Amino acid sequence: MNPPHGMDFRLYLDNAATTPLLPEVLAESRRWLETDGGNPSSLHAYGAPPREALGEARREIARLAGAPPQGVVFTSGGTESVNLALRGVFALPRPKANRLLISALEHPAVAQTAAALARQGVQVETLPATPEGVVDLEALAPRLGPDLRMVSVMAVNNELGTRQPLEAIGRMLRNAAPKAVFHVDAVQAFAKVDIPWREAGVGLLSVSAHKVHGAKGAGALIRFQPIELEPQLTGGGQEGGLRSGTENPFAIAAFAAAARRTQAVLAAQADERAQYHQRWLDFLEGFPRLQVFRSGAALPYIVSVSLPGVPAEVILHHLEQQGLIVSTGSACSSAKPQPSPALLAAGFTPQRALSTVRLSFSLHNRLADLDDCFQRWKLAMEKLVKL
Amino acid sequence: MNPPHGMDFRLYLDNAATTPLLPEVLAESRRWLETDGGNPSSLHAYGAPPREALGEARREIARLAGAPPQGVVFTSGGTESVNLALRGVFALPRPKANRLLISALEHPAVAQTAAALARQGVQVETLPATPEGVVDLEALAPRLGPDLRMVSVMAVNNELGTRQPLEAIGRMLRNAAPKAVFHVDAVQAFAKVDIPWREAGVGLLSVSAHKVHGAKGAGALIRFQPIELEPQLTGGGQEGGLRSGTENPFAIAAFAAAARRTQAVLAAQADERAQYHQRWLDFLEGFPRLQVFRSGAALPYIVSVSLPGVPAEVILHHLEQQGLIVSTGSACSSAKPQPSPALLAAGFTPQRALSTVRLSFSLHNRLADLDDCFQRWKLAMEKLVKL
Repeated sequence: MNPPHGMDFRLYLDNAATTPLLPEVLAESRRWLETDGGNPSSLHAYGAPPREALGEARREIARLAGAPPQGVVFTSGGTESVNLALRGVFALPRPKANRLLISALEHPAVAQTAAALARQGVQVETLPATPEGVVDLEALAPRLGPDLRMVSVMAVNNELGTRQPLEAIGRMLRNAAPKAVFHVDAVQAFAKVDIPWREAGVGLLSVSAHKVHGAKGAGALIRFQPIELEPQLTGGGQEGGLRSGTENPFAIAAFAAAARRTQAVLAAQADERAQYHQRWLDFLEGFPRLQVFRSGAALPYIVSVSLPGVPAEVILHHLEQQGLIVSTGSACSSAKPQPSPALLAAGFTPQRALSTVRLSFSLHNRLADLDDCFQRWKLAMEKLVKL
Repeated sequence: MNPPHGMDFRLYLDNAATTPLLPEVLAESRRWLETDGGNPSSLHAYGAPPREALGEARREIARLAGAPPQGVVFTSGGTESVNLALRGVFALPRPKANRLLISALEHPAVAQTAAALARQGVQVETLPATPEGVVDLEALAPRLGPDLRMVSVMAVNNELGTRQPLEAIGRMLRNAAPKAVFHVDAVQAFAKVDIPWREAGVGLLSVSAHKVHGAKGAGALIRFQPIELEPQLTGGGQEGGLRSGTENPFAIAAFAAAARRTQAVLAAQADERAQYHQRWLDFLEGFPRLQVFRSGAALPYIVSVSLPGVPAEVILHHLEQQGLIVSTGSACSSAKPQPSPALLAAGFTPQRALSTVRLSFSLHNRLADLDDCFQRWKLAMEKLVKL
């Protein structure tokens, strides 16, 4: 299995793991790797262009999120943003509010950080999900109260593609736990789905560049309210003292440019995206042995499909032999074949979860390429059903 | 003051703040931004090339440090490495060993992180420095003992260019506090100075890519001994569970390539580097109003020079008008004109510290360009002495 010569964007269906950097964004941003590679903290002239680029990127990310520019803290990626949100809040103890609520659908960045906080004495509770792949609001209501410090629920699940009821959660918090911080892991949503974060009551939002055709190495934690955070990286005092370390102007400038462009292209493609997704669902349902996940909350970026009895990795490699690139579970997790907690939370049996692959789409996946994809899928299925 | 059209490497004397990415390293590494931009954690073929690149970079950084490859934990930069070292050790409490010793010369990444740990109850003590700009070993001896958990001393000071007596510290620790972890911030030393880290007893080493002509966004914490660390970023479990978050194959591959090349070029330039440095010292001492820092511990990468009575920022801007790029204090600190704690620790008066600029050199600064630099310096001085 030799690595391909470059990625074939049309057949790459693992965009929830990472998206290829847009060539025009690289062309625009490479000056920060070349002629303008100064340190943004430098007082001399070589510091000014990267410093201005950071400011411009901050305004752009803020604009896309509907947040004030000073609310944007750039980080090295989504995981660091989530860690800063959760650890940064609970590092400032409030003895009478020591409870953290997360959903059972969270990415390991949230789930594992919550587990680490639990070991430090934070009271962590997990909200179950419904078979629709959304957090169960009925389980949320009795868990609200003045001792609740933070609720962390993702915007769009990375395995099922389901949009979570953030607005409803925000309303419930406003009524029954107005002091609780509402953190949203928006890594799979930012610049892809139009969600009025601020109006939904979101206080902290975690976003990542390489999920929206930026480069790896940038992300942000966006504050919509003046929520106090204890810095998790201390040193030179960059990012308003909240995140020390020399900034990465290349990755940050590329993040803003990529997010802006991705948002615009996806908005223009809205109809095509819906059709592209629907045609995959219809096509896959034509195979009697496949189980296709369906939900009224599904967004058109992810399809979750199972071939019971066949390990997900085997499905993946058969598809790969035909040139189709999909994933098993979340790419960020290590490779041990354990059923995904998020899939289990959505009611999958362990057997089904272990036989599930994810197709995730980007602006590069076009209707015109679907027939080619389907042909390849059919060829893989012919071999798979013989197993 | 318009930003220049690109950096003039010959006149850029702020290489301790950041070094320009080597063009050949960018040419070699850009594939990780282009055709091979997969997620290194992906099981499919697009994950393999970046995953292999991470492994290759790990072996190269380990080789350059004389460490085992599995000891290398990639981070987003030097500051994160330092934070992981200090916070990662003290997050695993040892009630009978709760003391952290740092030198008064440390970069804010160490000094501010130590201050944060002190607020959490760690007993932090600061070792004074001598007028030579090195940590005072006589002050170290009485502070050793079984309750000492960690000593953090930098390899080369970022403002004075002085090499610290790591071997002597290592010996003293071995004798009087063998369980203490010896952490070294080697951001200004790695790939530039040949130091036998392991033999010196160093347990944890923090290094950064963009100080050795790599790109911003990569660094490493290198473990020479199996020192237990509590991860500071939790999530997908990357980097052996010690540093979660999608890795940055571009910046990491560029780091290894840049460090290898920088090490080789600087070794080949050893005589030239010594001459280049010496000629600057001799030249500057020809100006009666300048005070040039001299130390037997100085390495040929940094010159610290003061023009008493003139604010450092004014000196910087006069030099900049002639095209010479220097810095005031450490670029990582914010811009408030406060005397550098490291300079004060080396015996500078506050007045002198506030009138001090730093010249820092890289492999791009060649003997052939010195006369041009000197001409420019003279022109700036003519205006400065009239102030």
